[in-house]
Amino acid sequence: MAQWQILFLFSLIFLIDSTSHASVSDFCAANLKGPDSPLGYTCKKPAGVTVSDFVFSGLAKGGNTTNIISVTPAFVAQFPGVNGLGISMARLDLAPGGVIPFHTHPGASEVLVVTRGIIKAGDIMVFPQGLLHFQVNVAKIHSNAFVSFSSTSPSLQILDFALFANDLPSELVMQTTFLQLATIKKLKGVLGGTG
Amino acid sequence: MAQWQILFLFSLIFLIDSTSHASVSDFCAANLKGPDSPLGYTCKKPAGVTVSDFVFSGLAKGGNTTNIISVTPAFVAQFPGVNGLGISMARLDLAPGGVIPFHTHPGASEVLVVTRGIIKAGDIMVFPQGLLHFQVNVAKIHSNAFVSFSSTSPSLQILDFALFANDLPSELVMQTTFLQLATIKKLKGVLGGTG
Amino acid sequence: MAQWQILFLFSLIFLIDSTSHASVSDFCAANLKGPDSPLGYTCKKPAGVTVSDFVFSGLAKGGNTTNIISVTPAFVAQFPGVNGLGISMARLDLAPGGVIPFHTHPGASEVLVVTRGIIKAGDIMVFPQGLLHFQVNVAKIHSNAFVSFSSTSPSLQILDFALFANDLPSELVMQTTFLQLATIKKLKGVLGGTG
Amino acid sequence: MAQWQILFLFSLIFLIDSTSHASVSDFCAANLKGPDSPLGYTCKKPAGVTVSDFVFSGLAKGGNTTNIISVTPAFVAQFPGVNGLGISMARLDLAPGGVIPFHTHPGASEVLVVTRGIIKAGDIMVFPQGLLHFQVNVAKIHSNAFVSFSSTSPSLQILDFALFANDLPSELVMQTTFLQLATIKKLKGVLGGTG
Amino acid sequence: MAQWQILFLFSLIFLIDSTSHASVSDFCAANLKGPDSPLGYTCKKPAGVTVSDFVFSGLAKGGNTTNIISVTPAFVAQFPGVNGLGISMARLDLAPGGVIPFHTHPGASEVLVVTRGIIKAGDIMVFPQGLLHFQVNVAKIHSNAFVSFSSTSPSLQILDFALFANDLPSELVMQTTFLQLATIKKLKGVLGGTG
Amino acid sequence: MAQWQILFLFSLIFLIDSTSHASVSDFCAANLKGPDSPLGYTCKKPAGVTVSDFVFSGLAKGGNTTNIISVTPAFVAQFPGVNGLGISMARLDLAPGGVIPFHTHPGASEVLVVTRGIIKAGDIMVFPQGLLHFQVNVAKIHSNAFVSFSSTSPSLQILDFALFANDLPSELVMQTTFLQLATIKKLKGVLGGTG
Repeated sequence: MAQWQILFLFSLIFLIDSTSHASVSDFCAANLKGPDSPLGYTCKKPAGVTVSDFVFSGLAKGGNTTNIISVTPAFVAQFPGVNGLGISMARLDLAPGGVIPFHTHPGASEVLVVTRGIIKAGDIMVFPQGLLHFQVNVAKIHSNAFVSFSSTSPSLQILDFALFANDLPSELVMQTTFLQLATIKKLKGVLGGTG
Repeated sequence: MAQWQILFLFSLIFLIDSTSHASVSDFCAANLKGPDSPLGYTCKKPAGVTVSDFVFSGLAKGGNTTNIISVTPAFVAQFPGVNGLGISMARLDLAPGGVIPFHTHPGASEVLVVTRGIIKAGDIMVFPQGLLHFQVNVAKIHSNAFVSFSSTSPSLQILDFALFANDLPSELVMQTTFLQLATIKKLKGVLGGTG
Repeated sequence: MAQWQILFLFSLIFLIDSTSHASVSDFCAANLKGPDSPLGYTCKKPAGVTVSDFVFSGLAKGGNTTNIISVTPAFVAQFPGVNGLGISMARLDLAPGGVIPFHTHPGASEVLVVTRGIIKAGDIMVFPQGLLHFQVNVAKIHSNAFVSFSSTSPSLQILDFALFANDLPSELVMQTTFLQLATIKKLKGVLGGTG
Repeated sequence: MAQWQILFLFSLIFLIDSTSHASVSDFCAANLKGPDSPLGYTCKKPAGVTVSDFVFSGLAKGGNTTNIISVTPAFVAQFPGVNGLGISMARLDLAPGGVIPFHTHPGASEVLVVTRGIIKAGDIMVFPQGLLHFQVNVAKIHSNAFVSFSSTSPSLQILDFALFANDLPSELVMQTTFLQLATIKKLKGVLGGTG
Repeated sequence: MAQWQILFLFSLIFLIDSTSHASVSDFCAANLKGPDSPLGYTCKKPAGVTVSDFVFSGLAKGGNTTNIISVTPAFVAQFPGVNGLGISMARLDLAPGGVIPFHTHPGASEVLVVTRGIIKAGDIMVFPQGLLHFQVNVAKIHSNAFVSFSSTSPSLQILDFALFANDLPSELVMQTTFLQLATIKKLKGVLGGTG
Repeated sequence: MAQWQILFLFSLIFLIDSTSHASVSDFCAANLKGPDSPLGYTCKKPAGVTVSDFVFSGLAKGGNTTNIISVTPAFVAQFPGVNGLGISMARLDLAPGGVIPFHTHPGASEVLVVTRGIIKAGDIMVFPQGLLHFQVNVAKIHSNAFVSFSSTSPSLQILDFALFANDLPSELVMQTTFLQLATIKKLKGVLGGTG
């Protein structure tokens, strides 16, 4: 029986209520159909704001890990209530051996908390903005973690896609990565790059 | 078996290593003995930075809920690696019936993810900066949640302490809250206020 | 004779003139019919900008204090010239005994200067962002003050409205405020709340 | 009888009290003996914070206008409580005919409210950051106004000092202002410039 | 032979490609037909973004210096890729004796690098935001420089235009600048001011 | 004949002079011996500020390109006057065939202007913050360019160093990059990594 959830709804309605009584707006839920800007989306009109802008159930269930890993975002596009607040979350699910390869988030720092899969769940770790990092599940069981970002739209730049899923001449990639031509051509093939 | 954790350490050492190779600093771990400023602490000298600035185990174990609730912070004072990054976390533990009473965080927005205690763990919820809110565990079991903040030092202003744990004349509190004098005097007694 | 004012108009026209000569825009008067965003409104087209975007007479006269207090805002909605500048004002008028009850401004710090009603007019006071505070006029005469905010839309969260002008079950409010049920039900009645 | 003021003190003590009860700091009063930084001063240790950091009486009395004008600042250097809050104030006093000559505030927008000297006291006006402006008192009586700034240290750049109170060759000033050499030499003489 | 340029195009296509592969957007090229806001323009839809948003050839050729000086901007209006990034550039060309008279940029700091016209090309110089400054070419040859700004729309306030190309009464300008009436009237004539 | 430079000095002295006359500080030259913070260094005392904080000659001469490429920074560590201003520069020199391999700047966007080496010098290009990019000189001659950054300390993360100049087990790098073990071991050897 989902009693927490019921209280959450109360609390949210209360939040919306109380601010409307005060005749001022303390939030700016994203109007996802309106224009985006460097600082977020424009605001929904108050009449269109609902509890579901501030409560998101999409992280409640692990993603499909048949593909070994799954990343479920709760960014502004999924969770309009975070618009303009400089924070968002995502859920990671990794089957045993699952890997999130080397990547950066050019627009956000990340704090990761492991909730299943290792003996000391609850450890947290911070990755400063733009730093290269990766995650690997070396446990024998399915693992999952929640990650928080200091941005409502933390972008994602996966190294292998940036290097090999493009049409740059392989010679140029070689020259600028010091990898071998054969390696580059092979990974271009795997990831759909050409040249 | 703590394999994730071992990889975390690797990853962190790698992070520190790689930035030192590049001879630039991509982070500013807080020097907690140095001065604080409106934008955070000054930076530790690189030689003093260690993996433990970026990995924090304090959220791995639930706090003591003999007192019904427990809030375990991982703010900049506990977790120096978040300094200047605009993000931090905390862990909430609530025994059945546990309550975190009405409060605000004047300096941060909050995203809360429930990880135990209700049928749909994983739901998340956002509380915009400064908004009054509360948490109650109506489940029959111990619950816990992780909260992320858009600040490294989200302050906390608990309503009852602000109103009653002070030395303001009770008449003045009455005049500015519309509560009854008897109510005020009683709560002042409970919370250690005078006047 | 309103000579200051005439000079103000000159000065403003001059401001608009001089920037148009320089072919660049140094301000972004709010287009109040356009979308709002976390950082303010979009800008009026230069042709639509007038002196009245930058001069506002609404604070010249005290509000009606038959209701004991009056708060007259000069926020971006009333004073489009402050859009994007991180500053705005309001005027407070309090009849003898007038009270602005406990409240916070989740989005702004406030500086208050008293201009009438006490022997040492001119004293100023700062309330950091999000902090609970109140104002009471204990003088025998009508008082007034000007307040400046570090935001163009400082929101307002009045404690009594947040706690009692809602539909939350009274038992839940009791549990999260430690007030008595009778007190809560009474104030809900006064302020229009239910439950 | 200074009753407002007494309440202000209460309110402040209360503010300091309540935050100390909550064991967190919601403000950062400037340690004026410590280092300055681009974002303000470092914070005073909590034990050293007093009510006088948040209440300032220096604007209560008009400055000496024997010199025709007087500008009394309440910036972070005078009013440490505004540190890090992005707001400050000043008081202007102008004898009849008093002039604050053309100037800019490179680091702040300004909102001005006239409180004495014209028939419609209370009008407000905004000067966007960095824009050239001036104030003149054309009234027959002493006037005063309060100005609020969107910075705790709004700098001041008076045109005449910038142009003439320096050691640049007069020919160079001529070339870069299109003023006449005689004019420049004369004003350099008045303002203490050479060359 | 424009090989660098060809590589630039590759690199840009690659940039656009790689981010589209990652299904996230790491930039916000300005939609110049959409509304402007205090923080920049809204974003072009991804389908409309092209290489020419990120590469700009307008600074490759010196402006016409028949008029002695030429300032060629690469601000957000000319170079939509800088939208939201807090940076832009311009090119200065000055014939011998060319002068950019006293001015400020209210919204940006400036770094200037001289690339031709003096014996030590490459020197750089920083002008903090809002500070009055000027440039003069005292060399015998045509000079040029590149300037970078900490804003995508650094505004420009030329002193002489602000003071004289307006309709303020000359007596008022005299009173607020301490210049002589004759000087003011003459410069008003030259620059198209009246009054 | 260094006449520009002389004027630069004048202009700077003037800048320092004029602000000292106005008794306010419009800049915060870095005290490089003091503590660093997330927002920059603390400020030098005014008495210690000199022209050389604001003028930097280190970019006037190309770096040594015997090593094929040279990057000469003018960041806050070399050029204290940019402290807190959100802008800095660097000079790139590339011999024919010179390569700056794939890298990111986690903390800054970059605008690059080519000043020698291709037929259309003056073209500029923007790289949004954190995006992977590279530079190659395919011209037959020595080339150079100036780059501007939207930060006073743009950090640098070179891909090959991050991936191979570390002590991570080669198997783990393989797992997280999909490169071959032999490739990894070879590059670790070249760049000084182990494991």
